[in-house]
Amino acid sequence: VASTNVAALNALLNPLHPADVADLLEQIDQRDRATLLFLWRDGIDGEILSELGDDLRSEVIDLLGPAELADAVRDLESDDVVDLVEDLGVDQQEQVLDALEAGNRVAVEKALAYPDESAGRLMQMEVVRAPSHWTVGQTIDFLRASDDLPEQFYHVILVDPRMKPVGYVTLGRLLGTPRLIHLTELLEDSFRTFRVDQDEEEVAYAFNQYHLISAPVVDEDDRLVGVITIDDAMIVLDDEHDEDILRLAGVDAESSLTDKVIATTKRRFPWLAVNLVTAIFASLIISLFEDTIATLVALAVLMPIVASMGGNAGTQSLTVAVRSIATKDLTGANVWRVIRREVLVGLVNGAIFAVVMGIVGWVWFGSPMLGLVIAIAMVINMVVAGLAGTGIPVLLEKMGVDPALASGAFVTTVTDVVGFFAFLGLAAVMLL
Amino acid sequence: VASTNVAALNALLNPLHPADVADLLEQIDQRDRATLLFLWRDGIDGEILSELGDDLRSEVIDLLGPAELADAVRDLESDDVVDLVEDLGVDQQEQVLDALEAGNRVAVEKALAYPDESAGRLMQMEVVRAPSHWTVGQTIDFLRASDDLPEQFYHVILVDPRMKPVGYVTLGRLLGTPRLIHLTELLEDSFRTFRVDQDEEEVAYAFNQYHLISAPVVDEDDRLVGVITIDDAMIVLDDEHDEDILRLAGVDAESSLTDKVIATTKRRFPWLAVNLVTAIFASLIISLFEDTIATLVALAVLMPIVASMGGNAGTQSLTVAVRSIATKDLTGANVWRVIRREVLVGLVNGAIFAVVMGIVGWVWFGSPMLGLVIAIAMVINMVVAGLAGTGIPVLLEKMGVDPALASGAFVTTVTDVVGFFAFLGLAAVMLL
Repeated sequence: VASTNVAALNALLNPLHPADVADLLEQIDQRDRATLLFLWRDGIDGEILSELGDDLRSEVIDLLGPAELADAVRDLESDDVVDLVEDLGVDQQEQVLDALEAGNRVAVEKALAYPDESAGRLMQMEVVRAPSHWTVGQTIDFLRASDDLPEQFYHVILVDPRMKPVGYVTLGRLLGTPRLIHLTELLEDSFRTFRVDQDEEEVAYAFNQYHLISAPVVDEDDRLVGVITIDDAMIVLDDEHDEDILRLAGVDAESSLTDKVIATTKRRFPWLAVNLVTAIFASLIISLFEDTIATLVALAVLMPIVASMGGNAGTQSLTVAVRSIATKDLTGANVWRVIRREVLVGLVNGAIFAVVMGIVGWVWFGSPMLGLVIAIAMVINMVVAGLAGTGIPVLLEKMGVDPALASGAFVTTVTDVVGFFAFLGLAAVMLL
Repeated sequence: VASTNVAALNALLNPLHPADVADLLEQIDQRDRATLLFLWRDGIDGEILSELGDDLRSEVIDLLGPAELADAVRDLESDDVVDLVEDLGVDQQEQVLDALEAGNRVAVEKALAYPDESAGRLMQMEVVRAPSHWTVGQTIDFLRASDDLPEQFYHVILVDPRMKPVGYVTLGRLLGTPRLIHLTELLEDSFRTFRVDQDEEEVAYAFNQYHLISAPVVDEDDRLVGVITIDDAMIVLDDEHDEDILRLAGVDAESSLTDKVIATTKRRFPWLAVNLVTAIFASLIISLFEDTIATLVALAVLMPIVASMGGNAGTQSLTVAVRSIATKDLTGANVWRVIRREVLVGLVNGAIFAVVMGIVGWVWFGSPMLGLVIAIAMVINMVVAGLAGTGIPVLLEKMGVDPALASGAFVTTVTDVVGFFAFLGLAAVMLL
């Protein structure tokens, strides 16, 4: 790549989609990246910058001169510029804003005034609207006559005289309808509006749930101020999913593959610290039974199996519960039914594995009573796993804590503690 | 709800969006559902059926009479009917197909002939196309004159005389351009086609990566046969995410909240069985050191901490790796850099927690050597966790196995075995 052949580089990179160029930049190492940008600085446009992760974007902006930066961002729509600058440092934000035309700059600054992760940040301000009393013919003539239609739009939004959106009509339907029909007869059922300060997560949920293509955004007086399109919602949905999946594993959702060692270490640290505390707690339970273990070392050999099976069953229940809460499928109406089901599943699977482990324990150490002890402990721990795996995320959600983030630590603590305590406690009572 | 008051029920349910009615049906129990459907059978339409999960949909179809079913599905587009019937049993599939008009039925049967989870299943066959030599004026006149435009369309697809798609034009741009301009001057950059037999996962990835709104689908001769829109791609993306997140936790991706106890038990069983085998394997390692543990029971108390920290660190690395593989950010080009980073992160965090645990072990059991042993074992296991957490998913991907499904079992086996072996082995050598 970095053979300093500018012509070959142009031939290679220019036909690529901006998203692919961004992926390429993310996959090569820092030195190659600097060389490539030096040779190919004219090729970087705003769309490539948009596709880069936050850390890398700021690195690339530092490598670009002010002139290239201005060229790069000039052609972007207001929502893309907002997305580009919102996570940059103040200095770099200034640099980008200075490169914009005055009108666009005002729009971007207005959007930046809305709260982080709100509908206001997500929307584009370029909207196509029509008075609600117009006919198809009037609307088509108006559209044909305007010379600054947004690059992408799918609906004409109908507004009343006070600029409140009352519905929308798809362009396809507009084109397929005689000129004299009124727009109000063509309104889509799926019409929904969002407020500028609504959380982008709710917006993405609604797009997904109601299969929206675009939706108007209104201010606190119900006046139309922008429009959110499905491609923006899809990006948010994708981010939320990533966040959930990473949080379930105890990884900070902001992390990315291009992070440095120190940044990554810091991001992994808190969860591991929590895990250390819970692991020590479980060890304290074991230490209650030191004498029991000293008498029968087989207990030390078998005890991790009980804890591990409980931990796995708990993680299964927990993951299903966290996903169902996120998609609003698990609510007050069915929570008891779901908990009952999870407990029964724990009982059935617990019973099956209890028989298997009972026989294994018996044969391995030649003690039927040891087999019975591990079997009973297994059933207890897997029932508890079902209960805790569903109950803990639901409780956390009620307390306003993100269940994806905190459930794992609590559930595995419960299954470790219950697993060790049930197994060693039963052994102390029944075997000694 | 089930107070047998039909008028009140109509007043309550009719204004709801089909997706919300479906959610309601999923959250009430089976008896309420039967009563509600009996009272409100006319209210069930095809869109509600589309929104239901597979098991529930088949339950509801059984409760509906043939006449209601025919009413319900008649107004759906071909891709929605395909989505509705593809996972039904053969009998119910026949019932639905019989309810369709002949033309629509042929389209649906043709789509069902494409492989499961392919672009052919996802696409709608209703497309709006224009010869590539047309002008804006000709196209607008053609659209205004047609009387069977699809309900939703966003692009006009340009085809050459052999029906091969060569590009597309957005309706917005069409409306904003003078009549004499040729369509070929308005083509969108983002144009991409899919083949009917392409995996829907690839389609969803491309929509997400290249911010597509719609894309033509071609057959093996490159002829246009349908179009996929972003709302279909968003559903696939959402499903894939769910699948990933559930598979990482060892839950069958097909499971849903409304599954019965037996179905859920069966779906959770395989992963728990794998876990039992790996847990027994780890126990075998412990049993190698029975004499060591008998001499020093403190080892039994502390050993789960080493395994647990390694397991957590491994899960963190693994989740980042699985996500990065799914989004194609982790490739051959950067895999060594990422593995090196994960190993270094394991080394740094391992060192920090080694110091903490070394002191805890020393103070707790009054033995500085025991503290040293647990500290060294901790560093070893967390480095191995970084290596295995990244290396195993990459290897599984190369072998054509879904890394989300199988990585967890391998990684925790490695961290358990290495954790127990390093800690107990070091203890045997250094302490006795």
